[in-house]
Amino acid sequence: MADSYERPLILISNDDGIEAAGILSLAAALDAVGDVIIAAPLQEMSAVGHAITMRDPVRARPWPFRGPSGQLTAYAVSGTPADCVKLALDKLVPRQPDLVVSGINHGPNTAVNVIYSGTVSAATEAAILGIPAIAFSYCRWGSGDFEASGRVAQQVVQQVLDNAFPPGILLNVNIPDIPYEQLKGFMITRQAQARWEEQFSERLDPFDRPYYWLSGTFVNMDEGTNTDLWAVDNGWVSITPVQHDLTAYRAMESLQQWSWRRLSGE
Amino acid sequence: MADSYERPLILISNDDGIEAAGILSLAAALDAVGDVIIAAPLQEMSAVGHAITMRDPVRARPWPFRGPSGQLTAYAVSGTPADCVKLALDKLVPRQPDLVVSGINHGPNTAVNVIYSGTVSAATEAAILGIPAIAFSYCRWGSGDFEASGRVAQQVVQQVLDNAFPPGILLNVNIPDIPYEQLKGFMITRQAQARWEEQFSERLDPFDRPYYWLSGTFVNMDEGTNTDLWAVDNGWVSITPVQHDLTAYRAMESLQQWSWRRLSGE
Repeated sequence: MADSYERPLILISNDDGIEAAGILSLAAALDAVGDVIIAAPLQEMSAVGHAITMRDPVRARPWPFRGPSGQLTAYAVSGTPADCVKLALDKLVPRQPDLVVSGINHGPNTAVNVIYSGTVSAATEAAILGIPAIAFSYCRWGSGDFEASGRVAQQVVQQVLDNAFPPGILLNVNIPDIPYEQLKGFMITRQAQARWEEQFSERLDPFDRPYYWLSGTFVNMDEGTNTDLWAVDNGWVSITPVQHDLTAYRAMESLQQWSWRRLSGE
Repeated sequence: MADSYERPLILISNDDGIEAAGILSLAAALDAVGDVIIAAPLQEMSAVGHAITMRDPVRARPWPFRGPSGQLTAYAVSGTPADCVKLALDKLVPRQPDLVVSGINHGPNTAVNVIYSGTVSAATEAAILGIPAIAFSYCRWGSGDFEASGRVAQQVVQQVLDNAFPPGILLNVNIPDIPYEQLKGFMITRQAQARWEEQFSERLDPFDRPYYWLSGTFVNMDEGTNTDLWAVDNGWVSITPVQHDLTAYRAMESLQQWSWRRLSGE
């Protein structure tokens, strides 16, 4: 084994919580690639988007986390995925990681769902600080066999370590729910245009008062064959570069044509 | 007064809660422009990012909300800003609004902070559904006089109603904390490149156990004179077009050059 200081340092987080099968599989797969440190939510934190904890303190508790090489350095954090990565990068890591990896999420993070994803938000925190970052999601809800997606994650991480990472982005990787041998390969994709329709179920509580529960139908309005949804539906591992600068540059010029008047002259 | 069916329908939300001074000022300013309906969080929901409530039901309670023209249709929602807009568009509005407006936020939403903003996430939900949307923020924390920012909001809304709105975006508007008469005008901007450094304060609780509190220093690394930060620092109302498709299109080509191997052939 090489001197540990020569190995890349990889920070791992997720949104399903530090006891989820997906992060266990990810840590096991990356233990062979570099030195791994884990900072993940104590509790499940799906669909928290890019929430951060400001009004309450956050704690980080050392956590017994076993990888193939033995005990890994791990912390359970009382916060969101973004909190975990922020706190780890500021206070928990011995040096700046070479890579921050989030997942493996239990369920896809494709199309519009990227904006609700705690898994992606963890990677975004690293990208903001200029650290290469990857979010992994396995397109199967609930439990499942993460062995294939762990192998895929290892290969993507190796690619990232071997190549020049484009600045200002993270990679959002979605892995189809099919056996490893049936995966066709990797596809660089864009987010599909999709949306949720009839989003809430309306019900009455035992006191006849209405309440609403998020449900709805996911509608893919995109016929492209280079989207994240198309890729995973057709057996490809989808790799979407995602940016954290949200400026819609293409719209700036048309907005400048509007008749904005000076305010003070009115 | 024109027939109410000829007036635009404007849905209003925020993240500071339905009792905040900012949403009161926004509703008052827009009451003159169109028919207003309000769906805002019952509780303050800052920095929730794009969180949505999936595991629990959401309730919407009719709320006594007075505008200049009298009682306005309003609901206090037990959820996040994104929940409010999702629920309102699906269940609470009489027809699809012509415009969805969020704010006026107590404090700026500029640069990287856009991704943490509940105010922006409310507008994003509308943009996903193809409805023109605007997020307003007043660059002063806590209480303050929202009279000037209300006047600014009214003018921006009128511009949006009078012009063709670019598809797939929302407008993120930040209003400087200076008297109305000193505002220089409107500037179409991009998000500044900035980040938070030394993000957490480490402390000991009464039992000598460590805890962390988010604090940190905001560092603007961007010398551009067309950014949101530059605009508000120099007396301009900043208008940034923001997109919800997060694909980093410019990075797709370079990623395709990496030596991605077929998985099944290995």
